[in-house]
Amino acid sequence: MTTRLDVADVCTLLESVRETAPLVQCLTNTVVTNFTANVLLAIGATPAMTDIPTEAGIFAEIASATLVNLGSPRAEQRIAMIEAARAAHQSGSPWVLDPVAVGALPVRTALAHELLEYLPTAIRGNASEIRALAGIGVGGRGVDAVDRAESALDAALHLARTHSSIVAISGVTDLITDGTDVLRISNGHRYLTLITGGGCALGAVTAAFLAMGKDQLTATAAATAVYTIAAELAVVYAHGPGTFGVAFIDALATVDSATIVSRAKIA
Amino acid sequence: MTTRLDVADVCTLLESVRETAPLVQCLTNTVVTNFTANVLLAIGATPAMTDIPTEAGIFAEIASATLVNLGSPRAEQRIAMIEAARAAHQSGSPWVLDPVAVGALPVRTALAHELLEYLPTAIRGNASEIRALAGIGVGGRGVDAVDRAESALDAALHLARTHSSIVAISGVTDLITDGTDVLRISNGHRYLTLITGGGCALGAVTAAFLAMGKDQLTATAAATAVYTIAAELAVVYAHGPGTFGVAFIDALATVDSATIVSRAKIA
Amino acid sequence: MTTRLDVADVCTLLESVRETAPLVQCLTNTVVTNFTANVLLAIGATPAMTDIPTEAGIFAEIASATLVNLGSPRAEQRIAMIEAARAAHQSGSPWVLDPVAVGALPVRTALAHELLEYLPTAIRGNASEIRALAGIGVGGRGVDAVDRAESALDAALHLARTHSSIVAISGVTDLITDGTDVLRISNGHRYLTLITGGGCALGAVTAAFLAMGKDQLTATAAATAVYTIAAELAVVYAHGPGTFGVAFIDALATVDSATIVSRAKIA
Repeated sequence: MTTRLDVADVCTLLESVRETAPLVQCLTNTVVTNFTANVLLAIGATPAMTDIPTEAGIFAEIASATLVNLGSPRAEQRIAMIEAARAAHQSGSPWVLDPVAVGALPVRTALAHELLEYLPTAIRGNASEIRALAGIGVGGRGVDAVDRAESALDAALHLARTHSSIVAISGVTDLITDGTDVLRISNGHRYLTLITGGGCALGAVTAAFLAMGKDQLTATAAATAVYTIAAELAVVYAHGPGTFGVAFIDALATVDSATIVSRAKIA
Repeated sequence: MTTRLDVADVCTLLESVRETAPLVQCLTNTVVTNFTANVLLAIGATPAMTDIPTEAGIFAEIASATLVNLGSPRAEQRIAMIEAARAAHQSGSPWVLDPVAVGALPVRTALAHELLEYLPTAIRGNASEIRALAGIGVGGRGVDAVDRAESALDAALHLARTHSSIVAISGVTDLITDGTDVLRISNGHRYLTLITGGGCALGAVTAAFLAMGKDQLTATAAATAVYTIAAELAVVYAHGPGTFGVAFIDALATVDSATIVSRAKIA
Repeated sequence: MTTRLDVADVCTLLESVRETAPLVQCLTNTVVTNFTANVLLAIGATPAMTDIPTEAGIFAEIASATLVNLGSPRAEQRIAMIEAARAAHQSGSPWVLDPVAVGALPVRTALAHELLEYLPTAIRGNASEIRALAGIGVGGRGVDAVDRAESALDAALHLARTHSSIVAISGVTDLITDGTDVLRISNGHRYLTLITGGGCALGAVTAAFLAMGKDQLTATAAATAVYTIAAELAVVYAHGPGTFGVAFIDALATVDSATIVSRAKIA
């Protein structure tokens, strides 16, 4: 089943993020912390990376939304992640789970399943990660997308239904589902896969959009649309992945409604 | 009470940093390590991020200056921070405390107060952090500056007097005080608040300038002046926060005395 | 004794990396994780930073090659490093040791010697680190190269012979030896020393090239040649170290065989 996403809602949500500067707490991996924070600042949100025990739960209650990314889950950070997810869940604050490389690696796989008990508002990953999290497939070999997004649709529908979550699968065409409706967004550029954190930072932007308190399927899809359209704008200024990464930050800060309306490829 | 900063001293200190390449040990948060190291290299200093117990104290004695930034204080890093601050204090080496998000969050607040016992040469933060550290106000919601710098002047004077420290408050106008004299620097650009680490890296540059062994109030103010003037130079090449961040590193490496003299807004 | 490196082999190895996208596991320091991952992506490899106990060993068996960099070895990461080195050694997978600041600092020095028991395929460092690791000299004051590469040649020959490793010393002229033959590569630019991770990321690229399964001396030298030639290409677009760092990533992604043949300075 498919549904429609009104591109006007995408623009309205972006404006809301820019006006309200939601505080997004990120418990994420060491590789992408800097890029993720800069992406959040560029989109108009306020990043904070409070990921130590005792503070993480307190902060998740203060924050507008929380991201839990499993890319390098040290023992101390794992405790903080559980704390933050529990606090977000109990206080009704939206939180996003990014199950990086779940499946093949035992520590994060066990952690992901423990985190699922706190019902993430949204789950974002590539096809192999979503399939592994749903118990279908053995997981990816890391952060790269081996499978096409469509191959994980059944897994995404299952995860979304059993956990009342939005599930977003990154790929050439991104799939976003609430377990019933399915949105497909075909914006973006392969350069996003050539800079580290290209997927991880989308999880943080998704958290920022979910903090706007609108329909969660719409918010998750809007985050994906803005993010991938910005990537298209950045390509014009890119001579390679280095200049692309820099121009992408600029594009997130400057992308406007007219550009979003003209470029959005949503089905 | 106000005093004057001679812009010639700013230029001389920058030249000294470039000539002597002071070794600056940074125990800082995971979000800004890379940016901080690149900022130090650009200004002519030599960064080192030795932040594990046993080594941190040894290194603080070798280093020309040390930065302790509380942005993501893991348990192991907290032990290393105490070690480094103690060693710097005992060996008479300058060290800078950046009390990121102190006030609202209990672990780092307790740590900040423990660190204050080792009398930081300089304390750098935004208004809400300085007020919280002085016991006035409840602290910020993270790394963003909510209050104007002037609102924390009383807190800064108090901290400076009780700990024999220089206190620098970042804002549109930066305030720097030794508890008696107050310097105000009005250089900079809002883009510095749109890249993560814009404030944190200034703490590291301050450490580099303090290592020159001159008057500490002058050195702290000079670091702020050079840093914020470089930001103004970078804006010319910026199409957004991404290109700004890159141009800012270039500007730190190339800013010269003539430019500093012509641009400095010091009161 | 000296030997020759055929520049055609350098080009063939680069093409192989781009075609096969080897999975390179990096257990590295917090300062350079992002840059290292982006360098690997730019050269055509697939980075993964699995550095927690239990997972690190499993991943080292899956990975095409592994990098162990001692720049900020937390207690938990040290356990993971031993795990990964052991697994790589036992499974016959190539691994690279980068002994950052070994010598003056006791924790990493002890760790480096423990890691040497697992016979790294290649060891990459600056002259002071290589000398300290071989027990000659007291080590560097951090990540900067104090000595010229040539001053560590005897240490490199000794290390290479006793551990059946390739040893690469970074400097204005890079030296690479297998304990018998010595290759000298004079490409590169001083800007590589003005961005953090300029040396560390070369360790990761070396791992990627070693994964191609060719002669290890040739592979290590080829990685150095491609990396330092890319630096020369980037300088054209650089106005300082900020723009250099960005252009360097672009150059790694675009450098071609004709450029390598025309620029390589190998003796």
